[in-house]
Amino acid sequence: MIRLNTDFLAPFLAASDFDALRPRVLGAHEAVLAGSGPGNEFLGWRRILLRPDDSLLEDIAETARSIREQADVLLCIGIGGSYLGAKAVIDTLSPHFRTASERETEVLFAGQHISGRYLDDLLKYLGGKSVFVNVISKSGTTLEPAVAFRVVRRWLKERFADADSRIIVTTDPERGTLNELRRQFGYKRFVIPPDIGGRFSVLSPVGLLPIATAGIDIRSLFYGAADAADRLTSAESNPALEYAAARYLLHEAGYATEALAVFEPSLSGLGRWWQHLFGESEGKSHRGLFPVGVLYSTDLHSIGQYMQDGRRTLIETFLIVSDGHTTLTVPDSDGVDDGLAYLTGQSLESINRRAYKGTARAHVDGGVPNMTIEIPDLDAPTIGALLYMFQHAVAVGGYLLGVNPFDQPGVEAYKSEMYKLLRKELQ
Amino acid sequence: MIRLNTDFLAPFLAASDFDALRPRVLGAHEAVLAGSGPGNEFLGWRRILLRPDDSLLEDIAETARSIREQADVLLCIGIGGSYLGAKAVIDTLSPHFRTASERETEVLFAGQHISGRYLDDLLKYLGGKSVFVNVISKSGTTLEPAVAFRVVRRWLKERFADADSRIIVTTDPERGTLNELRRQFGYKRFVIPPDIGGRFSVLSPVGLLPIATAGIDIRSLFYGAADAADRLTSAESNPALEYAAARYLLHEAGYATEALAVFEPSLSGLGRWWQHLFGESEGKSHRGLFPVGVLYSTDLHSIGQYMQDGRRTLIETFLIVSDGHTTLTVPDSDGVDDGLAYLTGQSLESINRRAYKGTARAHVDGGVPNMTIEIPDLDAPTIGALLYMFQHAVAVGGYLLGVNPFDQPGVEAYKSEMYKLLRKELQ
Repeated sequence: MIRLNTDFLAPFLAASDFDALRPRVLGAHEAVLAGSGPGNEFLGWRRILLRPDDSLLEDIAETARSIREQADVLLCIGIGGSYLGAKAVIDTLSPHFRTASERETEVLFAGQHISGRYLDDLLKYLGGKSVFVNVISKSGTTLEPAVAFRVVRRWLKERFADADSRIIVTTDPERGTLNELRRQFGYKRFVIPPDIGGRFSVLSPVGLLPIATAGIDIRSLFYGAADAADRLTSAESNPALEYAAARYLLHEAGYATEALAVFEPSLSGLGRWWQHLFGESEGKSHRGLFPVGVLYSTDLHSIGQYMQDGRRTLIETFLIVSDGHTTLTVPDSDGVDDGLAYLTGQSLESINRRAYKGTARAHVDGGVPNMTIEIPDLDAPTIGALLYMFQHAVAVGGYLLGVNPFDQPGVEAYKSEMYKLLRKELQ
Repeated sequence: MIRLNTDFLAPFLAASDFDALRPRVLGAHEAVLAGSGPGNEFLGWRRILLRPDDSLLEDIAETARSIREQADVLLCIGIGGSYLGAKAVIDTLSPHFRTASERETEVLFAGQHISGRYLDDLLKYLGGKSVFVNVISKSGTTLEPAVAFRVVRRWLKERFADADSRIIVTTDPERGTLNELRRQFGYKRFVIPPDIGGRFSVLSPVGLLPIATAGIDIRSLFYGAADAADRLTSAESNPALEYAAARYLLHEAGYATEALAVFEPSLSGLGRWWQHLFGESEGKSHRGLFPVGVLYSTDLHSIGQYMQDGRRTLIETFLIVSDGHTTLTVPDSDGVDDGLAYLTGQSLESINRRAYKGTARAHVDGGVPNMTIEIPDLDAPTIGALLYMFQHAVAVGGYLLGVNPFDQPGVEAYKSEMYKLLRKELQ
């Protein structure tokens, strides 16, 4: 069960603020459930969980098994939602370091920017390895993945006689460049449902194929999310609604920036996925909280000074794991007094937990409203549930702000501006 | 030469704003040069560059050579400034992927947080490898590195008969736990000069030993910085002063957040170092810009919507490289129209450059003041110069804001709060 603790908001928000907002929260929640709000043609992220397609899950898992048997590397080409969700889940549920003895297929990424330096280094690294490619794009015309796919496709064809059977496209059911290419070359394809936007697509084939190829049980992940979709229909004890309400009240009180703070480095990628989900869903009409993912205690020793004493426009949401299942404890200090004698014999996990508690208290004392999302475990069903919880919360939050949480007009504006400039300068 | 372009501030700041501020900027600059401002006992970051110690540089380079001959991995234990500077420079100047054929010593990090999960995974990865350790801490009593060093020291002693000769401490000249330990066990030591704060220490042994061990020419890096320290004494055409002035004027105009945006993923670590430098130097007395490092175009597809249309409290500083020396070009599209025909034959570098230009224009049109720092190259002397430029700018910027840019009272407050809580709960 995911829980939200808002005790440290008390100095900043009154219980009556929450009470007064409750009818509007329930109205927004109902609009999400009933599909009656703005952008309701993009509720596929709920639809796929309410009516699971087990044969699709099996097809993805089977494809991943086949890749894992043949490939040293699966190179995923995508950007935004076609990159951040898979990366978040893989980073969260995989070890931090790959040991040489493991013969796991490595999942790498390209097309998430336009750096020639990166792509050059990557192709050098791939030399001599068995490589499969999963290119993920609805239209196939987004600049970054389109460029990377052209480069990688050429490279693959020069090296593998069976290059075409090493390419899997994840794209629109009918339209777009990737469908044209697969008709021509016979690539295997998975479909991105048209009713799912990029930032809500992690539990569709967009995220699931890379995640399964990394060796993660996608059924557990998916059904963890489906269970949460079911549980979070409730109007009571619903952390998605509580989180949306608290963020909205703080936004209306004038706060500008929300830091999602994790104490486990493996959750950093999930922080970047969260930034995308919230920033792109809410940052419209000059409204919304600016989302920043931070890793503590690392970042306490960099931006901690600002959090404690800087301009008071920040709120903080801690994302905490109840049980990390690690057993490492602190040995003695070889007889030298390092001022930390009381730590001897303690587990790192309990120290990390107390570091979180100390930080939350110090920051609330310093004037930073903070709340805590606590998840029981770092496993696939829990992460699935957490993904859903954030998606539900941002949908409700967008409706509270009065914006359509499912469109991205500003991204389209920037894309169109950039494409115009590129065309003009390069033609 | 590092250049600052402020053309896109014109819709937001008048030339007369800069003119009016100029006497104060020059006053702050003079205070830095003369050592007459608040915190002037911490100007060692300038002192070491003005009077270089070549025998120290040679000692560090020689120690690194010896480690590189013997070690598969150098594990650096440190947090904040004892971690971010080395990581930034190594990430910037190394390839993105380690190829199996390279027998380079790998530089890894621990003690930058308290995750038991991370340390557990790390020790598994180190099994069977030849490991050296560089523990970096002025006092030796900072929680995160102290805990990691206890764990790693025990692990090293169980595996290597010569464990003590594999440990190098970088610490205070006299005091602290690490000096006690080295007197007891005979560890080699490098000194952190007492007049250099953590976030200004990258060009001291703190940063230089890990950087040299990664195979980077520290003399080039150091003398690139020393040249910049000399050039940036000038009151004219000084990008450090121009940057400090522009940031200050935008701060006073009510902007809350500064994003440092890079278009090269290898510069992401430098963005985190910059966050530390600026956040901890300026975030005091409820003042300062909240610093956020972003990677474009990756993050344009996540927080780009917010940048374009969200709350108008953001400014943006682009950090751009004139020549990345890459030659990768875009192949044709196999006869399929992907809408990007005009890209065929273009270099990725020129496309990335135009993506930056398009972004800068779209964002200024969207109401985000932005400026550009352009560096000629991604090499050691240029990065050295850039490190110095930022340090000089933040010193001047702190004086403009009326804060001491060299202390960190809020970090001390958080540490003391957390240590109290830890002691109480664990004793």
